[in-house]
Amino acid sequence: MNRLIAILCLIALNCFSQSNLKETYNLMPWPKSIEENNHRFVIDENLTVSIEGDSPKRVQHAVTSFLRRLSNRSGVFINEGFAMPLSENQQASIQISFKESAKLIVDDDESYKLDIQSNKVTLVAHTDVGAIRGLETLLQLLTNNDSEYYLPGVSISDAPRFVWRGLMIDVSRHFHPIDVIKRNLDAMASVKMNVFHWHLTDDQGFRIESKIYPKLHELASDGLYYTQDQIKEIVEYASILGIRVIPEFDVPGHATAILTAYPELGSKPGATYKIERYAGVFDPTLDPTNEDVYVFLENLFTEIAPLFPDFYFHIGGDENEGKHWDANEQIQKFKKDHNLSTNHDLQTYFNIRLEKILNKLDKKLVGWDEIMTPNMPKTAIIHSWRGEHEGLAKGGTLIEAAKKGYNTILSNGFYIDRMESVVKHYQTEPIGDVQLTEDERSRILGGEVTMWSELVTPLTIDSRIWPRTAAIAERLWSPKNITDTDNMLKRLEVINYRLEDVGITHIRNKDVILRNLSNNQDISALEVLSHVCEPLKIYSRNEGGTEYKTYSPFTLFADACNVDAKDALKFKKAVTNYSKTHSEAHKTDIISLLEIWSKNHEAFQKIDKNPKITPLETLSYNLSEVSKFLLKRIKNERTSKKDMKTFKSQIETLKQPFADVELVIVNDLENLFEALK
Amino acid sequence: MNRLIAILCLIALNCFSQSNLKETYNLMPWPKSIEENNHRFVIDENLTVSIEGDSPKRVQHAVTSFLRRLSNRSGVFINEGFAMPLSENQQASIQISFKESAKLIVDDDESYKLDIQSNKVTLVAHTDVGAIRGLETLLQLLTNNDSEYYLPGVSISDAPRFVWRGLMIDVSRHFHPIDVIKRNLDAMASVKMNVFHWHLTDDQGFRIESKIYPKLHELASDGLYYTQDQIKEIVEYASILGIRVIPEFDVPGHATAILTAYPELGSKPGATYKIERYAGVFDPTLDPTNEDVYVFLENLFTEIAPLFPDFYFHIGGDENEGKHWDANEQIQKFKKDHNLSTNHDLQTYFNIRLEKILNKLDKKLVGWDEIMTPNMPKTAIIHSWRGEHEGLAKGGTLIEAAKKGYNTILSNGFYIDRMESVVKHYQTEPIGDVQLTEDERSRILGGEVTMWSELVTPLTIDSRIWPRTAAIAERLWSPKNITDTDNMLKRLEVINYRLEDVGITHIRNKDVILRNLSNNQDISALEVLSHVCEPLKIYSRNEGGTEYKTYSPFTLFADACNVDAKDALKFKKAVTNYSKTHSEAHKTDIISLLEIWSKNHEAFQKIDKNPKITPLETLSYNLSEVSKFLLKRIKNERTSKKDMKTFKSQIETLKQPFADVELVIVNDLENLFEALK
Repeated sequence: MNRLIAILCLIALNCFSQSNLKETYNLMPWPKSIEENNHRFVIDENLTVSIEGDSPKRVQHAVTSFLRRLSNRSGVFINEGFAMPLSENQQASIQISFKESAKLIVDDDESYKLDIQSNKVTLVAHTDVGAIRGLETLLQLLTNNDSEYYLPGVSISDAPRFVWRGLMIDVSRHFHPIDVIKRNLDAMASVKMNVFHWHLTDDQGFRIESKIYPKLHELASDGLYYTQDQIKEIVEYASILGIRVIPEFDVPGHATAILTAYPELGSKPGATYKIERYAGVFDPTLDPTNEDVYVFLENLFTEIAPLFPDFYFHIGGDENEGKHWDANEQIQKFKKDHNLSTNHDLQTYFNIRLEKILNKLDKKLVGWDEIMTPNMPKTAIIHSWRGEHEGLAKGGTLIEAAKKGYNTILSNGFYIDRMESVVKHYQTEPIGDVQLTEDERSRILGGEVTMWSELVTPLTIDSRIWPRTAAIAERLWSPKNITDTDNMLKRLEVINYRLEDVGITHIRNKDVILRNLSNNQDISALEVLSHVCEPLKIYSRNEGGTEYKTYSPFTLFADACNVDAKDALKFKKAVTNYSKTHSEAHKTDIISLLEIWSKNHEAFQKIDKNPKITPLETLSYNLSEVSKFLLKRIKNERTSKKDMKTFKSQIETLKQPFADVELVIVNDLENLFEALK
Repeated sequence: MNRLIAILCLIALNCFSQSNLKETYNLMPWPKSIEENNHRFVIDENLTVSIEGDSPKRVQHAVTSFLRRLSNRSGVFINEGFAMPLSENQQASIQISFKESAKLIVDDDESYKLDIQSNKVTLVAHTDVGAIRGLETLLQLLTNNDSEYYLPGVSISDAPRFVWRGLMIDVSRHFHPIDVIKRNLDAMASVKMNVFHWHLTDDQGFRIESKIYPKLHELASDGLYYTQDQIKEIVEYASILGIRVIPEFDVPGHATAILTAYPELGSKPGATYKIERYAGVFDPTLDPTNEDVYVFLENLFTEIAPLFPDFYFHIGGDENEGKHWDANEQIQKFKKDHNLSTNHDLQTYFNIRLEKILNKLDKKLVGWDEIMTPNMPKTAIIHSWRGEHEGLAKGGTLIEAAKKGYNTILSNGFYIDRMESVVKHYQTEPIGDVQLTEDERSRILGGEVTMWSELVTPLTIDSRIWPRTAAIAERLWSPKNITDTDNMLKRLEVINYRLEDVGITHIRNKDVILRNLSNNQDISALEVLSHVCEPLKIYSRNEGGTEYKTYSPFTLFADACNVDAKDALKFKKAVTNYSKTHSEAHKTDIISLLEIWSKNHEAFQKIDKNPKITPLETLSYNLSEVSKFLLKRIKNERTSKKDMKTFKSQIETLKQPFADVELVIVNDLENLFEALK
């Protein structure tokens, strides 16, 4: 019995210490296992790194990057700027070894073991990619006291839960030059993501050079496209980081750009098409009954496929409402002749033709979940994106696909362009409590964050992707039981600003927008507002897709704001706790925020007015006024009935959107008022 | 007599109004002539742009960029995102016309005329490049009141004073990827610069792919080089902006990287070489007596030259001390055999051989001014860089070269890596009062800003180039009599932050460094210090070139600071004026700054210490203390003799450098003390 208690104590202690470790170390994704020792590896100028393993190109690159970032973060002037082979430096203080180069396929082993002692760090992995994942962990461990930077003594054994941890970037709605892609690849690698899904074509632009069909990039990109050399550059850059690249050519819908160049492939006879400038679902669609379409796609894919060494090739296949098919008599006849009773059947016919083309090119077809129709071959991969919001059951099509025998990846729940809290995405558990056979489980490859770019430009895209994507990366890498949201938020705060190291511009570009808004006047009042405002969510910023064109300004207040506005989170916590406890500490927190807001309108008014900030005036004024009122209440000062009436009316005003943002503290202001009654 | 007075009045009025206009409009470079009318062209959604002219590619690109920046700055949702041919829109509100495409040669006509009326803007130029220069002026005119953005009614007639207005970027000491180059090309175009001089090779790296001599980029670049496709991409990008690109291959000195790859071309028999990690002047030198060297250079230049369509090709030629020549008996013998009495003669022999190679390739040789030896052919262009600091007479070699019959460009006075005030560079008048014949004057083509990159990385380079380069651009474009420094500084403040529009990171990256320094704590105390500190000047930050290696950290406090520290300028002005006038207004300015500094150490101490900011503690403490003392004095509070002694000792402490910065207000603190006696 005593032994049982001892064992239980040990388990409890271990649980406690693991959660304790999560308070100490700001790792993300959290590793599979971590143990502390009492050592400390101090960073000094004599630090050296050795590599053991054949074809160490990836690891060499990663070590160089590691050393630069280590040096930049610590300020230490490290004498040796590059890794050496182990044979040349048996005494290296950081020793890395691996057995083989990863092939960049879904079966790659990305595990690693890391051991930090006083004078030596050992990083062992099966593959080079495992080793570079471990280097990122090492860098995340870097910490300091007042006199030195050091790596704390820990032993880590780590491996991913899912093999597919992706980020999709839509470069059609807004083009994103290769430096944007590169810095985001670096950021992906820093949180151990391994798939870059490149949404290259859509109604708003065809973004890749075609030498066989040059009209595609010449007529349908506004000059904003990647040359084939740039594509190769990115694929090589990603490969060095252990990231696979999956191209997407969205067909048969989302095809306005293709049809702008080659209207004869469309489903509306005689029509001409123009690159789409708005957002939404549009009618232009390839004609699946036209053999020329298959010749075109086979030629195009044959040209493009060699640029992308990955096995997988995404053909989109989403959101085709088939309106032009319905209106075309020939297409209707074709359906009858081929026993295709619905447009879905027709699209499946199209997809199966595509699958054969891709098979010839040694590629596997990936498509959005609309492609999962009864006749679709099981070799296709189902990209699950629809869920409750799209009229499906919770959990969407992922489990269904796996059960039906498809490999599948999840994006439902990871649509970061919906501008929802990181908490919601973090809590999206792909499998949950569903009982799956081993085979079914193995078909759930992982998931992808989707960065649709209707409302993001190179100036703002990083702030929309990060930091939320880091939390999703953890969901896809870390054990299922890593779910403590508060702890995730604490770690995310550090990971967030560390993303600046790899060039992510999410923090720095905010002030750029505010300076532009204010014509370079003092931006502190706008900063204060931006900490309690968030851009309108779930596509309501661009109602019907017609408020913004692709070339509308994205340098507005809403573009400077972000989800999870920081003072809003702080205020919510303080109000929630104060409502329960009426403690002085929470009261102090509340008062300090209310004081900032109550004074802010005075600062706001000092900015010379201009048409960009005028729409914020009502917001700013009313926020100050309600804060003044609540300050009086919380300090037990006298307020009149009239004051209360004014307060209520001001709160109603504040519930409206202003300049495409919402004041996200408005409910908590009301809650506070109730708590003070 | 009355008529004379009237004429004099008119002239005076015109002078007054011109200088008045400079207070109103923040144009840089200031145009040749500008007149106001009473119109105002309001920016609204209906704005359209037409182009008249053949091959309008450059202007189309410039208009698209203009419309995006106009929209981003004004927040106006302009309906039409692209220019149309005049034939398609005779009623366009902005009408641009030009006669021919510029050839991108030194003789190109860059003049333009701009006329802004209430409902119409007309921009007329001889060439497309002239038109795009005018579009930049148009954008600089954009202004607003509280309800609208508009272009003020003016007529401008403009043309450059010098035909060569360049920026050199050294990508050898630190590599700068193409996105860095692109955004700097955009910034150059925004201040009408037209030459990008690309310093591609030096001791620290060979930065361009060679297919004939692949060891150059494989062994001598650490993997940091431009592919030939990227070179083409940049040359094309620059051409669209009306910017010529001049490559530099620095020989026969500054050749460590070349010799790392091909040691057999060196002057030290049997030596091996390693890429240089430090800064300075090094001995490795090509052997001018070795015929293989000429075969190598001819093959290399023949491969590279077609990538650069410009007529000019820079061969460096600077800072060869000839030590390896002196030590090599064969070379000494060669000199005797060929009647070359000095190393200069030997280098001239080398240069003449190079000139012949370049002639075959239809290129003109440009070299740093050491190449101006008696036998050097007059077809070479002399790049004047040495002056007083290098032991020559003031004005250096520019005038001498022009008088001797060489075409010449000036960089002496434009060495921005010396980290000196913009005022000094602005006051560098290339010709001054020297009397020149028309021919001599025509041989002075212009000048180049030189951004040597020993101490700059992609994170900081923009802050070293800008905004000072904008003022030098004005020196090279605007009439000679545009010299009012205060007015320049006022305009520069606006131009400075407007550079953010084209992606220049000089402002935003400062906080990135401060966040890194403080481990993401409150950076306001560091901000305050950075407004009165400047990086050590004139190469004293890297004494002997051995304090920093190429891969040392450049994320230190000195990297966050910049020349012309803003509070230092403000304080100097206030103290200078107060010393003269003892006015209350200046006293108030002084007190407000002293109060900021006196309180700052308290804030500084709240930052958790780390090894990067500890060296700033003494600076921060003493600045607070002396400010407190001076505050007492200025407020006529009692100070003791001991206080005064302490003050003096603290001032002495503050005269020392801290963490590679100097406190630039220290003299003014002393001056204030004197003024308060």
